[in-house]
Amino acid sequence: MSSIWGKNLKISLFGESHGPAIGVVMDGLPPGFAIDESVIAAFARRRAPGLTPWSTARKEADSSEILSGLYRGRTSGAPLCAIIRNTDTRSSDYTELKMKPRPGHADLTAEYRYRGYQDPRGSGHFSGRLTAPLAFAGAVCSQILAVKGVTVAAHIAEIAGIPDLKFNPLSMDPGQLENLAAKAFPVLDDVAGSQMIEAVMAAAEADDSVGGIVEGIIYSLPAGLGDPMFAGIESRLAGLLYGIPAVKGVEFGAGFAATRMRGSQHNDAPYMKDGAIDFRSNHSGGILGGISNGMPIVFRVAVKPPASIAMTQHTINLATGQDDELAVRGRHDPCIVPRVTPVIEAAAAVFALDLLLDKEVLDHD
Amino acid sequence: MSSIWGKNLKISLFGESHGPAIGVVMDGLPPGFAIDESVIAAFARRRAPGLTPWSTARKEADSSEILSGLYRGRTSGAPLCAIIRNTDTRSSDYTELKMKPRPGHADLTAEYRYRGYQDPRGSGHFSGRLTAPLAFAGAVCSQILAVKGVTVAAHIAEIAGIPDLKFNPLSMDPGQLENLAAKAFPVLDDVAGSQMIEAVMAAAEADDSVGGIVEGIIYSLPAGLGDPMFAGIESRLAGLLYGIPAVKGVEFGAGFAATRMRGSQHNDAPYMKDGAIDFRSNHSGGILGGISNGMPIVFRVAVKPPASIAMTQHTINLATGQDDELAVRGRHDPCIVPRVTPVIEAAAAVFALDLLLDKEVLDHD
Amino acid sequence: MSSIWGKNLKISLFGESHGPAIGVVMDGLPPGFAIDESVIAAFARRRAPGLTPWSTARKEADSSEILSGLYRGRTSGAPLCAIIRNTDTRSSDYTELKMKPRPGHADLTAEYRYRGYQDPRGSGHFSGRLTAPLAFAGAVCSQILAVKGVTVAAHIAEIAGIPDLKFNPLSMDPGQLENLAAKAFPVLDDVAGSQMIEAVMAAAEADDSVGGIVEGIIYSLPAGLGDPMFAGIESRLAGLLYGIPAVKGVEFGAGFAATRMRGSQHNDAPYMKDGAIDFRSNHSGGILGGISNGMPIVFRVAVKPPASIAMTQHTINLATGQDDELAVRGRHDPCIVPRVTPVIEAAAAVFALDLLLDKEVLDHD
Amino acid sequence: MSSIWGKNLKISLFGESHGPAIGVVMDGLPPGFAIDESVIAAFARRRAPGLTPWSTARKEADSSEILSGLYRGRTSGAPLCAIIRNTDTRSSDYTELKMKPRPGHADLTAEYRYRGYQDPRGSGHFSGRLTAPLAFAGAVCSQILAVKGVTVAAHIAEIAGIPDLKFNPLSMDPGQLENLAAKAFPVLDDVAGSQMIEAVMAAAEADDSVGGIVEGIIYSLPAGLGDPMFAGIESRLAGLLYGIPAVKGVEFGAGFAATRMRGSQHNDAPYMKDGAIDFRSNHSGGILGGISNGMPIVFRVAVKPPASIAMTQHTINLATGQDDELAVRGRHDPCIVPRVTPVIEAAAAVFALDLLLDKEVLDHD
Repeated sequence: MSSIWGKNLKISLFGESHGPAIGVVMDGLPPGFAIDESVIAAFARRRAPGLTPWSTARKEADSSEILSGLYRGRTSGAPLCAIIRNTDTRSSDYTELKMKPRPGHADLTAEYRYRGYQDPRGSGHFSGRLTAPLAFAGAVCSQILAVKGVTVAAHIAEIAGIPDLKFNPLSMDPGQLENLAAKAFPVLDDVAGSQMIEAVMAAAEADDSVGGIVEGIIYSLPAGLGDPMFAGIESRLAGLLYGIPAVKGVEFGAGFAATRMRGSQHNDAPYMKDGAIDFRSNHSGGILGGISNGMPIVFRVAVKPPASIAMTQHTINLATGQDDELAVRGRHDPCIVPRVTPVIEAAAAVFALDLLLDKEVLDHD
Repeated sequence: MSSIWGKNLKISLFGESHGPAIGVVMDGLPPGFAIDESVIAAFARRRAPGLTPWSTARKEADSSEILSGLYRGRTSGAPLCAIIRNTDTRSSDYTELKMKPRPGHADLTAEYRYRGYQDPRGSGHFSGRLTAPLAFAGAVCSQILAVKGVTVAAHIAEIAGIPDLKFNPLSMDPGQLENLAAKAFPVLDDVAGSQMIEAVMAAAEADDSVGGIVEGIIYSLPAGLGDPMFAGIESRLAGLLYGIPAVKGVEFGAGFAATRMRGSQHNDAPYMKDGAIDFRSNHSGGILGGISNGMPIVFRVAVKPPASIAMTQHTINLATGQDDELAVRGRHDPCIVPRVTPVIEAAAAVFALDLLLDKEVLDHD
Repeated sequence: MSSIWGKNLKISLFGESHGPAIGVVMDGLPPGFAIDESVIAAFARRRAPGLTPWSTARKEADSSEILSGLYRGRTSGAPLCAIIRNTDTRSSDYTELKMKPRPGHADLTAEYRYRGYQDPRGSGHFSGRLTAPLAFAGAVCSQILAVKGVTVAAHIAEIAGIPDLKFNPLSMDPGQLENLAAKAFPVLDDVAGSQMIEAVMAAAEADDSVGGIVEGIIYSLPAGLGDPMFAGIESRLAGLLYGIPAVKGVEFGAGFAATRMRGSQHNDAPYMKDGAIDFRSNHSGGILGGISNGMPIVFRVAVKPPASIAMTQHTINLATGQDDELAVRGRHDPCIVPRVTPVIEAAAAVFALDLLLDKEVLDHD
Repeated sequence: MSSIWGKNLKISLFGESHGPAIGVVMDGLPPGFAIDESVIAAFARRRAPGLTPWSTARKEADSSEILSGLYRGRTSGAPLCAIIRNTDTRSSDYTELKMKPRPGHADLTAEYRYRGYQDPRGSGHFSGRLTAPLAFAGAVCSQILAVKGVTVAAHIAEIAGIPDLKFNPLSMDPGQLENLAAKAFPVLDDVAGSQMIEAVMAAAEADDSVGGIVEGIIYSLPAGLGDPMFAGIESRLAGLLYGIPAVKGVEFGAGFAATRMRGSQHNDAPYMKDGAIDFRSNHSGGILGGISNGMPIVFRVAVKPPASIAMTQHTINLATGQDDELAVRGRHDPCIVPRVTPVIEAAAAVFALDLLLDKEVLDHD
């Protein structure tokens, strides 16, 4: 198992859904940056459960305690560890699932991998709850990025096939970002958002669930960061994003749509604007040869419909070795896209800081 | 820069398009496996340039020389290095590009990253030519996987919007695989393939290029391999695939299409078949919680249209600091999907062996 | 900064001497092993401060709280995080040191590295207190190793030039190990131990400090583990040991003494004993070509005299930019060798489990 | 197996003693540095065999061919691969050794680790010959370090108990370095050197071998590089040095001698000298808390006597399962210290450049 990610800034996530606590160690933070814990708390509320009708009823304040790495309100350069206590746990719900793996869930693969010793309560370490410490890490990194002039954002791009507007891929549009982080349902177009909520509620009423797409963006990352091949921006960021439960696809810039364009359409033409290089389009998502070109880094993440649904499903019974049926009880989200959106924004922030930290500085003259 | 990938089996790629040689070091191969160099040569021909009308006219035999790691025809366990000499290099073609970066290409980002010291000839280390040693590595790994009963395959899933048939996602279909590797244009449906070739040739005549999608599959990987979070199958395989030039999207199983499904549709129901666990569908692509469930690993890769096109394009001139125009001369593929297909198969083989090697073996009783 | 170590089992240490808590995340533990927390507590007491005359007067129970990775008393395979709250902190002692770096201490290099933002209280993250979570990790690993039949041990080999007896390098000697772990002053020869204690107390009375050597041993590690070159046993274990504050030398087997031997003396001759391969000596410390040969792994670690002494010393004043003097107040050990001995044993346990986990299992037939 | 080392600059070594070629890939070199191949060739001659009476009679020019990473004589930033062809191989010498493992050598552990599939000719990948590409890498790095004002050096500190003078640990002494690199027997005191040569020749005549100690030094490394704990200078450099065959001990600064000093003697007192911080001694070897303090980095490496001696030794016979005898034929060094000295200098150069490259550059204001 490796729940560790990063090159310069390493994050190590730990915890289980119904264990004493979940948390993160951030190793490699640059020293001297002021961290405001109220900003972290505000960010946590964007991901926290129990706050909206389309979220699980589990109530968790997700308040974090910083154990190290902060001195007089600034990063000290030493590893920063934060923990979040689990409070509202009802573990009796999970006994049946140990024998009857939920279709579409990691119950069965966890059994294979950990030979029956995994913590099954609330999906254990496989729980979406592990995204809370990732959100924490993102809230720390965002504050450092802000000092360096880098901004990250994410919105729901699509739920159940209903599309939101898109981020302006050419430059930061303050109008688009305004209020986005404050919304319980983070879309650019609230009319589309209402339709999405209806689709989510309809699925919930049908004891079912829906998926969607999140679009993330990183503004003002300097040009020339990244590397060709396996340390390129796509490789590193995708490796992080696929660590978020339920992610099944990642694309950059035009992504899969690029495959239906001709080169002449897809190529982003550079031009001189006020003495600096700019681009007339951003189909590359700000990345060429794995390296940033100074345009916003744009990516889209496919989030599958949650596996835990109340509808009766066919499954097997590991105790009897026979086919069986299952209706998942407990508290589950009919759609995790709204709550995973700030998590993807957080992941983008962690990534952007890690990337910024490998800026090569050795001059040769 | 890190052109190194892997956890147990590390591959380190090196070389530039017009330098003396390109190659790979494979560190961590298990000892004792017989490697047939004629199989490697046959695999190289599937990727080699100059053999079809839709490929660059550059002629390279891509014959590899193994310098280490093989003893009496078997892997010795020591690092295996192979080199491929570059022969048909015409570097005079690239002088203009140093000043006029190709739209959609890494010319400009390489300039930012390497401060003008990068080798610009044939795109240097950014060249698709670097996929030749990756293909070599895959041809070695495939032979080891064959002994372990694991098979990898890839086909052109789509070019210019024209779809091929799909691999059977439930189990290996020998009929589908038959002849696939032997085809110059690796599709399952040759009628669709003819239409794709027409689209490629039409783009070439228009001095333009087209993109497409490759579908890869890994059959018979044992269940229980992989990890939750950042060492999951998706994270590790995507990190490798994005190292292949021109890849802009990666999805697993139903991928982006999963976002438009309900949970009840998307969930793959397990059932008992002849005393063993099987699944009625494979929307997960064989991966749940980052861990294999015993079904085929299925993934799709978005390949953008090549940036180098003969049509005149707008760009800038780094020498004058003014806008300029560019018509890319030289030898380029109007579509790299056919040649990148075996490369993606090779990447899948490298990945599958790396994954197989981290099988946990410490019993506790 | 990277306070992370390991290949298969990664440990990530965090915390500062006077912060809220210190701790460790252990990522990669094999599932299913029973962990007895009372064994961990007993191990912690061997390292804990405040218990003997030659230790700092700081009182810390060093009781650990396990936050994750344990389910029903067994490792679940998920990351195991444990924290140890700091309780007896007196931070007023350290204000002067921020301006007057202690000779021989990391005060000045921390200032260079972290630009004044490091936590100076009790040496912050540089404190020997960070060895408490390392001891915790070792106490966990030792219990897993015991199931696999592997035993680790360490004793004070020398203090102030006074030598202890040596471990039997050929095989485990139960008589030698009996009571060793239970001793407040872990030596094999208590007469030598008494002389060492006298030397420590004499140094303390002179407001000075003394150093020493710790000998560690790993019994019953299978032959054939490790690798040539940079993943060899020496490279990996030394990399871990040098992470322990105050370590300035590491040697394996005969080590530096081997340099004064002839090959005919140094070479360990194998012979057949009851049908199995054994060796007549163990000058190699159980390692040849970076790989275990089945003999005990033997190593010695040089521990410098503590830098913090009450005697007045010359130093500089960063505020005035002038020479200055310093007499270190506060609570410090006149010799850390007794307390670092279980830490080195713990490090050996962490290493041994990490090594055991990379046992290659892919058979080729 | 991992013959890869490094954090920012990764070196990947490959090859076997009697295979087609040995070599190295250097991934992560900064772009734009001029590399003079004649400097590399001169460095290779310092390590090359067959040139002195105390070296093996094997003749190898060790001329390297650079395959990538260099463009117009400067590093391009892409991975630099160089290979060295093996020429003077006489593999018939090694058949007996496959059955009769040499005492003190890796023959038996290689058999355990690689299950009989390792290349036994000339010790295969375990051969000291693998230090030739390490020397190459060091010769490249030294040229980059020279531009940055950093100098590395190494000398024979002791052979068969006969000591050389020491490097001045306080600052670079041009008189000491003069001619050192040009000497076939690199000592500071040629009288001591003559005695050492006599001891080596005496051992050779007795069909035996001798060991020794190498002292290495890195001058003018900036203060503030490195990290506490496992990414500290000692951990990283020791991990590299132990990758060199025959190394059995590494110490920094006063090292093991520090254990017999009191704190008041060992502590290096800082003082102000011409407005800058200097130190009155350098017992720390320029490292405190894993971080450089601006003083020279000083370390000593224990090199065991070569295992391959002509004297008849007891061993076992793997074919018969009985005790047996062995007199090692073939061409072997009676002492490898003179030839390993430039290799250790090379390792120091590789390390110093890797360390310099992780200089943290993110300012917070």
